[in-house]
Amino acid sequence: MKSYRKELWFNLPTRLGFVNITQQVEACLKESGIQEGLTLVCAMHITASVFINDDESGLHHDYEVWLEQLVPHEPTGKYWHNRTGEDNADAHMKRQVMGREVVVAVTNGKLDFGPWEQIFYGEFDGRRRKRVLVKIIGE
Amino acid sequence: MKSYRKELWFNLPTRLGFVNITQQVEACLKESGIQEGLTLVCAMHITASVFINDDESGLHHDYEVWLEQLVPHEPTGKYWHNRTGEDNADAHMKRQVMGREVVVAVTNGKLDFGPWEQIFYGEFDGRRRKRVLVKIIGE
Amino acid sequence: MKSYRKELWFNLPTRLGFVNITQQVEACLKESGIQEGLTLVCAMHITASVFINDDESGLHHDYEVWLEQLVPHEPTGKYWHNRTGEDNADAHMKRQVMGREVVVAVTNGKLDFGPWEQIFYGEFDGRRRKRVLVKIIGE
Repeated sequence: MKSYRKELWFNLPTRLGFVNITQQVEACLKESGIQEGLTLVCAMHITASVFINDDESGLHHDYEVWLEQLVPHEPTGKYWHNRTGEDNADAHMKRQVMGREVVVAVTNGKLDFGPWEQIFYGEFDGRRRKRVLVKIIGE
Repeated sequence: MKSYRKELWFNLPTRLGFVNITQQVEACLKESGIQEGLTLVCAMHITASVFINDDESGLHHDYEVWLEQLVPHEPTGKYWHNRTGEDNADAHMKRQVMGREVVVAVTNGKLDFGPWEQIFYGEFDGRRRKRVLVKIIGE
Repeated sequence: MKSYRKELWFNLPTRLGFVNITQQVEACLKESGIQEGLTLVCAMHITASVFINDDESGLHHDYEVWLEQLVPHEPTGKYWHNRTGEDNADAHMKRQVMGREVVVAVTNGKLDFGPWEQIFYGEFDGRRRKRVLVKIIGE
């Protein structure tokens, strides 16, 4: 069994945003030399997500509006977590809706995807350096 | 390490619906001959889910009602994604709530499940042919 | 390839609650002797979650309040699932929001975590004995 590990770093200029990381994960897979196995891609921070969906800017706008309705950032004082001096309680919940991680099959040395699947880093408390872990196991 | 791959195809007659695919995944596992490992079951489309929950029709009705409250299909014009000519923005969000994938342990050649765990395909934009990927790795 | 399996048991005194199980999972990993691979940690029951987030009691309070807003427990009669004699339909939905499972990379014999990642058992229908499965594969 082979294994491969890499960290991808991000620093988004906004509090909330989405970055297509599919090509970076494909580059990791190529570098790993693994032909058959599983790829884990996960946020290493608890106010961020990794998820698979469509690379369409209108949809990303819709996600922002919808997540803000489900878990409003303000008034920040209504969240007990923010009494610790943070203002990011909503980000910890938005991340649960969008998910921490994806597991992607590796087949014939490629990410085994349907026609529109793209991997995204979802940031809900940006303006700081944060990481995504790519771990691949297989042969 | 062994690996196994199969696609399962679906074409639901309704926009939204749930299909119990546990037996199909069990058949894949048997065919793979793998005794110890991990099974990934994931939607290959971004308006569908694979999830594990109860095979109880009342609960499935409750899921439909609840998902429609969280992300109404209509008015379709309120979603920017639908300006692309689609009407399925809500389906992209419902899929995030229910999840893209499950990872199931394989122990002694069986899906290693608790008493009520069943695997479902969740469709949120049906009336077309769509796929689920089953990938198993192990020994 | 090595594989390891263990069940962790819980019996929470309340309907809803969160338990930090990180140390128990670390003990499993140590016992497994696996240095490189993947760890699956999943609820074996469909009204419970395993998720990764912050070990901060204010945040856990916020999760409770928010989940109750998204899926109120009462009036229990509004859920068709509860016509079966259950009163836990809401628990089946709360578990979908928080997730069934996490997959954690194993690197150099450790859970490969960012600075604040902690694994939690999330209970939404407690006051009974329930299980979490830890399955580790690798070398």
